Amino acid sequence: MNTNTLNLGSEVAHLKRSDMRKLINLTAAPDIISLAAGLPSGEHIPVDELKDCIATVLERDGARSLQYGPQFGPLVSWITEYMKRRSVPCEPGQVLITNGAQQGLAIVSRLFLNEGEVAVTEEVTFTGIQQVTAGRGARLRPIPTHAQSGADMDALEEALRGDPRPKLIILVPDFHNPLGVSISEEKRVQAANLAAEYDVPLIEDDPYSQLCFEGEAPLPIAAHDTSGKVFFVGSFSKMLAPAVRLGWIVAPEELMPMLVAFRESLDLESSALMQRSVGEYLQRGLLEPHLDSLNATHRKRCRAMQSALEEHMKDLATWTKPGGGLFVWVELDESIDGRDLFTRAIEKKVAFIPGDAFAVVEGHRNTMRLSFCNKSPDQIEEAVSRLARIVSEMM
Amino acid sequence: MNTNTLNLGSEVAHLKRSDMRKLINLTAAPDIISLAAGLPSGEHIPVDELKDCIATVLERDGARSLQYGPQFGPLVSWITEYMKRRSVPCEPGQVLITNGAQQGLAIVSRLFLNEGEVAVTEEVTFTGIQQVTAGRGARLRPIPTHAQSGADMDALEEALRGDPRPKLIILVPDFHNPLGVSISEEKRVQAANLAAEYDVPLIEDDPYSQLCFEGEAPLPIAAHDTSGKVFFVGSFSKMLAPAVRLGWIVAPEELMPMLVAFRESLDLESSALMQRSVGEYLQRGLLEPHLDSLNATHRKRCRAMQSALEEHMKDLATWTKPGGGLFVWVELDESIDGRDLFTRAIEKKVAFIPGDAFAVVEGHRNTMRLSFCNKSPDQIEEAVSRLARIVSEMM
Repeated sequence: MNTNTLNLGSEVAHLKRSDMRKLINLTAAPDIISLAAGLPSGEHIPVDELKDCIATVLERDGARSLQYGPQFGPLVSWITEYMKRRSVPCEPGQVLITNGAQQGLAIVSRLFLNEGEVAVTEEVTFTGIQQVTAGRGARLRPIPTHAQSGADMDALEEALRGDPRPKLIILVPDFHNPLGVSISEEKRVQAANLAAEYDVPLIEDDPYSQLCFEGEAPLPIAAHDTSGKVFFVGSFSKMLAPAVRLGWIVAPEELMPMLVAFRESLDLESSALMQRSVGEYLQRGLLEPHLDSLNATHRKRCRAMQSALEEHMKDLATWTKPGGGLFVWVELDESIDGRDLFTRAIEKKVAFIPGDAFAVVEGHRNTMRLSFCNKSPDQIEEAVSRLARIVSEMM
Repeated sequence: MNTNTLNLGSEVAHLKRSDMRKLINLTAAPDIISLAAGLPSGEHIPVDELKDCIATVLERDGARSLQYGPQFGPLVSWITEYMKRRSVPCEPGQVLITNGAQQGLAIVSRLFLNEGEVAVTEEVTFTGIQQVTAGRGARLRPIPTHAQSGADMDALEEALRGDPRPKLIILVPDFHNPLGVSISEEKRVQAANLAAEYDVPLIEDDPYSQLCFEGEAPLPIAAHDTSGKVFFVGSFSKMLAPAVRLGWIVAPEELMPMLVAFRESLDLESSALMQRSVGEYLQRGLLEPHLDSLNATHRKRCRAMQSALEEHMKDLATWTKPGGGLFVWVELDESIDGRDLFTRAIEKKVAFIPGDAFAVVEGHRNTMRLSFCNKSPDQIEEAVSRLARIVSEMM
């Protein structure tokens, strides 16, 4: 059990991020087959539909759609109904619209996490979570993640018992970035119960659950919360388009005035034009067919990646088999350093993100995050076979 | 000289804001002539032009305009040139695009101001500045503002000498909200010199300078800064439209990595679509004619307000005579309580914001902020005459 507490200063988090940016810049040459960036599949972004929705809103609502204003009611209603469909009790007064999930993380963290206090996160996790806790001056107490089953709930309980008591838990239960795994329903129930039992707020960061291409996404942790300790953070960035800059927080109604005050101190409000345009898109019923076609493409690409890994890496690595999201996590022999592999891969015109870039703890250097969402099955096959050749040479 | 330091908790700032919202809600009935809200003149928001720019961007750039991405180069270039025209040395690497000026305030404050530390602000100022300092857990050391000449620079020096030393200064030099005054060039030089001499960073919050309808806007404080201590914060909210949610920070290049890291921890980045669309609007040369026509309307309305005040309030009040911006500040006899006046005004179907809502210190209860930007000259004349009648009755 890991109950160490790390002091991840904002400089460290910044370095990690700038490290990530340097890595991604290296992968940007047009002749490189890059499995690095975690962008949603570009050709599926509904450019024409959004253009039409924006035009409709500007014609219908005129200057009101470009002014300051309250949260757009129909968008709040859609979110409320969406949460209810996912078995999370939710009233309009519990919804705060944000600029994507990152702002949701920043606002809820502002409420619970102060300088020097402890937050529990997965030991391998999205760099934005590391940045937001570092931005609060907090220390991290990471819990182990299993590549096949995600965050360890026994370790979560251990971490919650540790001294000093954590003030916040942040988990990514669905199609985790970078692992690609979802935690089981049983673990979701446990997570909700632990937050309640130890009286520690839990942020459920959910940018990916609707990118589900095998079976059904399980209910969120928030659906199992009966104590008001789980703060659901959602986003339209991956399910629609990042540049709408829209997400949301679901929180107990009595906390909303504080959350709203913090949000206003940060940047007042989200764009009325974007709120109305995405509201229009949702009201036209365009999201469901869009997700169907997006996920069908992702399914094809993920399967192509699984086949290629099976064909070329069977004896060299283990990897996750996600039913959704954007990423596969590959664990190589411990002798392989992902940074060396990356350098050699760039020479061979193929790219990925070395997994240690997501690690809060030391180690994880023998890992890769592969994104399957932006490349054709043929490109994926070629990329994986090149990577396998390099790994073989390194062994 | 006021060198008191106030501990304005986030609860207080929140109450002030929610107070403000309650006040503005009270003024929203359609039969009320409201001089309350500080929204730019709605009929001047260039809805059709922006619609065309957005459509052009979506057709030209497709999914790239809806993805994550780096800052949009042409927008950064425009800002760089704009700053140079205003005599502020500025390179593209010094510009961070934000969601309006409020986010600029939040990000720069995050760099310099920690829990319990002291910030210097004007004693009557924009509530967003009060929220951002409260959001950092900072204490305020307010400096007096003169209704006719703005912030007192001797008091600023006094405040900078106080114990503990302040970590940040925030000033609104142009068409101040709520006062409507601009500080003189001499004071701007002094402010820049004081920041340098006492080695305290100064945020120059400039949402209004381009709303100048009499003469020329003076050079910004940043134009007189030779020590890299002045952080210019600009915004497109008032000069174009609030819902584009775009503003910018100009900062020394060596600090940009930290500013970018803080910004990413808050909400990653500003909308690529909005950056490109506003970039398109600016490149088409549409801003200048837009500002000419906006300011011509504001000039007419401000003059109507000045005439009405002259006619109806000459013996009842003194007021500011702004050459730009959105607001006139009215000081009444000390016996008049602005909150009582507000209640009576609502009964008579006229509204304003009681000035004490903007005050960091006690007092200022005999004041009103009147917005001239959204009402016709006839409505303004009628509103001021009604207010004058109520004030007469109260004397």
